[in-house]
Amino acid sequence: MRITRRALIACVLALGAGLFRHGAAAQSDPLPSWNDGAAKTAIVDFVKVTTDRASPKFVPAEERIATFDQDGTLWVEHPIYTQVIYCLERVPAVVAKNPELKNVEPFKTVLSGDREAIAKLPLRDLEEILAATLSGMSVDEFQSDVANWLETAKHPRWHRPYTDLTYQPMLEVLNFMRSSGFKTYIVTGGGQDFVRVYAQRVYGIPPEQVVGTAGGTKFGYDKDGRPFLTKEPKLLLNDDKAGKPEGIHLMIGRRPRAAFGNSDGDREMLEYTGAGAGARLMMLVLHDDAQREYAYGPALGLPFSKIGTFTAALYDEAKTKGWSVISMKNDWKVIYPFEMK
Amino acid sequence: MRITRRALIACVLALGAGLFRHGAAAQSDPLPSWNDGAAKTAIVDFVKVTTDRASPKFVPAEERIATFDQDGTLWVEHPIYTQVIYCLERVPAVVAKNPELKNVEPFKTVLSGDREAIAKLPLRDLEEILAATLSGMSVDEFQSDVANWLETAKHPRWHRPYTDLTYQPMLEVLNFMRSSGFKTYIVTGGGQDFVRVYAQRVYGIPPEQVVGTAGGTKFGYDKDGRPFLTKEPKLLLNDDKAGKPEGIHLMIGRRPRAAFGNSDGDREMLEYTGAGAGARLMMLVLHDDAQREYAYGPALGLPFSKIGTFTAALYDEAKTKGWSVISMKNDWKVIYPFEMK
Repeated sequence: MRITRRALIACVLALGAGLFRHGAAAQSDPLPSWNDGAAKTAIVDFVKVTTDRASPKFVPAEERIATFDQDGTLWVEHPIYTQVIYCLERVPAVVAKNPELKNVEPFKTVLSGDREAIAKLPLRDLEEILAATLSGMSVDEFQSDVANWLETAKHPRWHRPYTDLTYQPMLEVLNFMRSSGFKTYIVTGGGQDFVRVYAQRVYGIPPEQVVGTAGGTKFGYDKDGRPFLTKEPKLLLNDDKAGKPEGIHLMIGRRPRAAFGNSDGDREMLEYTGAGAGARLMMLVLHDDAQREYAYGPALGLPFSKIGTFTAALYDEAKTKGWSVISMKNDWKVIYPFEMK
Repeated sequence: MRITRRALIACVLALGAGLFRHGAAAQSDPLPSWNDGAAKTAIVDFVKVTTDRASPKFVPAEERIATFDQDGTLWVEHPIYTQVIYCLERVPAVVAKNPELKNVEPFKTVLSGDREAIAKLPLRDLEEILAATLSGMSVDEFQSDVANWLETAKHPRWHRPYTDLTYQPMLEVLNFMRSSGFKTYIVTGGGQDFVRVYAQRVYGIPPEQVVGTAGGTKFGYDKDGRPFLTKEPKLLLNDDKAGKPEGIHLMIGRRPRAAFGNSDGDREMLEYTGAGAGARLMMLVLHDDAQREYAYGPALGLPFSKIGTFTAALYDEAKTKGWSVISMKNDWKVIYPFEMK
């Protein structure tokens, strides 16, 4: 009798949930942290037309793919990308293992702790630090090191773990789309292995749905003959700009129905998404809230930022192509989950 | 009232299905094309202990990942891999576009149609043909070309479409594992883009769950400014041997709980799977049925084969490590779906 009893219990629970949901239907709002406005309407309408079988824009469940940039779209990216902080803070451990790097640039500057000098390091130096701190260890070692770091590292402005600094309104979008049958993916310029460590816990997104900048690994055996993977410095996918649609094809193999970003690095992903037939949703988060978060562009005269650049050209393209621009200041009631009562 | 009515109808249907299943429970067999024996028992027992909450070997649903090699594990790979036939048959189209290749080897030999000479082409020549026939076009063009080819191409022995030559017992394993909450992946040495064209229709596996040998793509715009991806000759992942665990890490980011293969090319995938803690299932299909399919090894004195090599060393490793070897001859009642009544 097990199957039928279990089925019966599941049904009673489901009916209960259905009644409850129905009872609350008039008041229920899948996006409670969003102010009413064009951005919220765009999301709600898109989900409605793509999931209603009677709609000419209905999308079969298996084709409901939604991709989300991470830095600046799902969590804070200022004053600098979280992963770059991780890499800088890992330099002492790398130098301890390779003492000859102690007096070699750019490691010397990073070890000095001189923030101004570190901020001025050219891109090729940063890349050298990223390569040195993100490779050479086993995949398992890397995962536990990142997990440990995330437990103690704090954002300099909020003095909270970085994983607290996700955007509550975007967490609601992720949940809303998932509960509407969309498969949610992160498509980030950040490291795929880095983001996979916390994506399930923080965003409800499993590792296999995280697409990011990815290096090669090398299969080998330890002294007891047990196989393991070592992270190699070889770059396989630079998941930024044109690399985003290329990464989507490589890792997913379908064109997304919806794509969310916040910078010039997301332009090609949104273009690629929008070039498909049928209903599509393209959205960009604009950081115009210096008080509650940060304000940067340079679109709309906001201060220029190297990190999360949102140019006037991107803003114009969004307007021309009907992409929605989300104003953090005007569209979001709260920014962070910890502001919720 | 819509939600509650829909929930009610769904429940009545679910309960009906549950009762029906219960009524048929004593007779129900998730693997009807398998003879009773160690291989079938290994699969059924593994699914039982990993899905029963009361079992110490229970595996949470999100960690239930099962990977399947394709060629020789899910469908016929002899006398030669299906994708290689596709590439050889595509040579005339490539030469029509690039007439200067007409008198250049290895294209000249392929155009001659001399089967013996073609079979003798060295590996580097075959690779040149694969590169020439699998790149240079848009992703969309490639997909429709493969789909068209599959509609008309026939296997030389059975005179049926290649997609008819899947193994019925393995289709049952795929369905059984999926209905037990496992996410089924193909992890193939074949081309990821090639297999993705038919994996959903043939195996019920969506494109995002196909991991294979993968080349780069290049994002660009057509003359009307519409973005598209071009297949590049650059190899990103050689998804064979050590490349299989590397590809699993890149594309899935979790260690599988179960892995199925049939050749030395699957050894590292099975080792990697088996090195994880908790319940694991590793299985190898042995082609020992010359009458109904093919017989090749060279394990157990079967004739040596370049395609799908199953060495005595692999057989010994399987025995030592407790991997199950599936005998096509003894374990499978039927081979192909078209043999079913």
